[in-house]
Amino acid sequence: MAEPAARIEDEALTPALVAAVLDAAAAGDVLRLTDLLDPLHAADIADLLEQVEPADRQALLALWGRQIDGEILSEIDEAIREEVIESLPADVVAEAVRELDTDDVVDILEDLEEPQQARILGALEGVDRVAVQQALAYPEYSAGRLMQRELVIAPLHWTVGEAIDWLRAATDLPNQFYHVILVDPRMRPQGYVTLGRLLSARRDTALTALTEGSFRTVPATESETEVAWIFTQYHLISLPVVDAAGRLAGVITIDDAMTVLDEEHEEDILRMAGVGDEASLSDSVAQAARGRALWLGVNLVTAILASLVIDLFAATIEALVALAVLMPVVASMGGNAGTQTMTVAVRALATRDLTARNMLRVVRREVAVGAVNGLLFGTVMAGVTALWFGLPMLALVIGLAMVLTLVAAALGGILIPVGLDRLGIDPALASGPFVTTVTDVVGFLAFLGLAAAVLL
Amino acid sequence: MAEPAARIEDEALTPALVAAVLDAAAAGDVLRLTDLLDPLHAADIADLLEQVEPADRQALLALWGRQIDGEILSEIDEAIREEVIESLPADVVAEAVRELDTDDVVDILEDLEEPQQARILGALEGVDRVAVQQALAYPEYSAGRLMQRELVIAPLHWTVGEAIDWLRAATDLPNQFYHVILVDPRMRPQGYVTLGRLLSARRDTALTALTEGSFRTVPATESETEVAWIFTQYHLISLPVVDAAGRLAGVITIDDAMTVLDEEHEEDILRMAGVGDEASLSDSVAQAARGRALWLGVNLVTAILASLVIDLFAATIEALVALAVLMPVVASMGGNAGTQTMTVAVRALATRDLTARNMLRVVRREVAVGAVNGLLFGTVMAGVTALWFGLPMLALVIGLAMVLTLVAAALGGILIPVGLDRLGIDPALASGPFVTTVTDVVGFLAFLGLAAAVLL
Repeated sequence: MAEPAARIEDEALTPALVAAVLDAAAAGDVLRLTDLLDPLHAADIADLLEQVEPADRQALLALWGRQIDGEILSEIDEAIREEVIESLPADVVAEAVRELDTDDVVDILEDLEEPQQARILGALEGVDRVAVQQALAYPEYSAGRLMQRELVIAPLHWTVGEAIDWLRAATDLPNQFYHVILVDPRMRPQGYVTLGRLLSARRDTALTALTEGSFRTVPATESETEVAWIFTQYHLISLPVVDAAGRLAGVITIDDAMTVLDEEHEEDILRMAGVGDEASLSDSVAQAARGRALWLGVNLVTAILASLVIDLFAATIEALVALAVLMPVVASMGGNAGTQTMTVAVRALATRDLTARNMLRVVRREVAVGAVNGLLFGTVMAGVTALWFGLPMLALVIGLAMVLTLVAAALGGILIPVGLDRLGIDPALASGPFVTTVTDVVGFLAFLGLAAAVLL
Repeated sequence: MAEPAARIEDEALTPALVAAVLDAAAAGDVLRLTDLLDPLHAADIADLLEQVEPADRQALLALWGRQIDGEILSEIDEAIREEVIESLPADVVAEAVRELDTDDVVDILEDLEEPQQARILGALEGVDRVAVQQALAYPEYSAGRLMQRELVIAPLHWTVGEAIDWLRAATDLPNQFYHVILVDPRMRPQGYVTLGRLLSARRDTALTALTEGSFRTVPATESETEVAWIFTQYHLISLPVVDAAGRLAGVITIDDAMTVLDEEHEEDILRMAGVGDEASLSDSVAQAARGRALWLGVNLVTAILASLVIDLFAATIEALVALAVLMPVVASMGGNAGTQTMTVAVRALATRDLTARNMLRVVRREVAVGAVNGLLFGTVMAGVTALWFGLPMLALVIGLAMVLTLVAAALGGILIPVGLDRLGIDPALASGPFVTTVTDVVGFLAFLGLAAAVLL
């Protein structure tokens, strides 16, 4: 019988549900726990395990751990996965990984320590173990790590009827597949046919007559970033992966590409904010503090650099303390304008919208935007300064400094990410400190330098 | 015959290719242009049109515009889509949109002005026009706008054989479909069957015996953000959409969800950097400057607020100008630490990892991280200050101020996004200025206040 239509609202991990689960765990009520957790999707159970306190998690696992399956294991965040696997009986883990496709096993394995890796590899059947070990031989974050080995292939010369008969007889089809991949006698992929076309074509049609124009392949050594980009750019559903000899090695499906895309975006956002590779909210204080300290350290150096610039003008500030009051405004506006341009540039580099060809045009546009907003806010700030301190020359100085700083912010905001990208350094990770240095130094130098020249 | 395996490297939009296309356009060589552009994917042609100068774009369209099809139109960035459609002959546009699925037509239409909308609607066949108009009646950014009306459905009581026979006979199957959706006599979706299972099951098997556990539906009024989240969370390939009466209204496929996910991330990153809803590199100077001015304006107000705090201590600074030299260090470190925490919080809210249940734990962790890094960098900066200015009390003051500021940054960095989220305001858009105000004000107040108390 068809299952009743599940409504998202009924299933979501509500606070009430989490509370009920914790109550049942505290009461040691395994039956109630099973009643509550059974209807949940593996992803929601994994979320629940991530959100509760470590002690509650252990209590839950002790009572209900035997019912954890492969899908839940692969949904669990890597920050707590090791802890979860550690606390499960060996046979539960073995059973769980055996039901997964090889790509999911690889995803679980690559974050584990040596002894746990060996334990899980040992639980796999011979042929799956070899497939997983081969995948692990590819570099981290490569297509080879992402692909599943379970394939649905057909020789080039088959007809629709032959393919359908073979599919009907097959007993070990992958959990997910959307295409039949056509291979030549040397296992080199030559095209693919969607299941929809296969289903609706006549039995005597040649498979080669039904291949899709969207077909393309990637080498197993290709980076997963590139893979995610290819999926997005060409709206693919699956992407065959080839080895160095051009033979079909596996296939990547869109759900895995979507996961990569999600992770990459997350990484980009966190990197741009200087949070490094912080994995999740489950990271410990020490892990989180260490990850962020690196960037704060870099920032401290650039901030001291800015202080050295200010120190050059100590006498000027002593003569006119209003300069000390106003100088953070110039630096802060420059910093923000620089971050705006930098973010646009980093994103455009990631989506490949910023190329050698349109570089000059984009730089011109950013400088123009910086000049326009510099004039606008320079004028406003000059007005504020004139009213506040009653010093027209100081007003002129801060207005001019603002224009100079915002133009410098625009230049730094685009040229620094582009330069880092050309040097092969991730612009999302490294641009921030450099841009801030430029805007701080230019901001203080312009404001205090002009003040020294004009006012004293 | 199967097409030869396309290699990504051969097809990508290389600078050489773009140059060749522009040369051909300049020479008015339509044949060469066709030779160059024909092998390209629609997404690459769209990228090319976006990257070239407006004048070159017009020249290209004049020569080659008649060959633009629906797929290229839907790939083109909305920033230039209007311009492109404007310059194409009416019959080309009509022909192009007629071959698209309804969701793609809606996607093109919703960004156009009234007269162009009417022109395109008029070009559609009656039944498609009604479908598109119905979709446009749903709110912007809703599931109803995202779904395609082209459906593959089967009555609940059918067998595999009946479904396959019907699929074979069907002449207007959607361009993409991965499931057969089972509906009851009142058109309410009850489950779905993957094409893979359909293909591999016996003809006499009931479809209801093959339904997938992943099946769920969303109301047409659901937001596209929620839709993207559901796809990611539950690894869906397609998601049936129901109307207010629970009847099947359409289906959303994963490629559309991936596009939404991509756009939402883009939006989040740009919003956090205060770039607003800047559409693309093709935006004009005026558009870009206006979008960013809003945030710079807010920042100017908060910066002046910080200046007022400094002004309270003008006499202190006059007495010890080293304070002016060092104060930006405290503010800058606070600002960066605040941004780090804020980014983690905004992300965790978006991925629903931060809930009422683990809030307190996360706040405690952030404060602890702030204290640890405050102590670390406070100590370093105290050392630097002692060496630089030879004033032990000043060193103590900056060290203490740093600890206070980094703890305040942690608190502000998490409580402000959470508070905004509870008020229904997008934390990615609005957190930045508030967090910066907190860190600036606390930073200057702590450093200058302590200095006034201890040093003078």
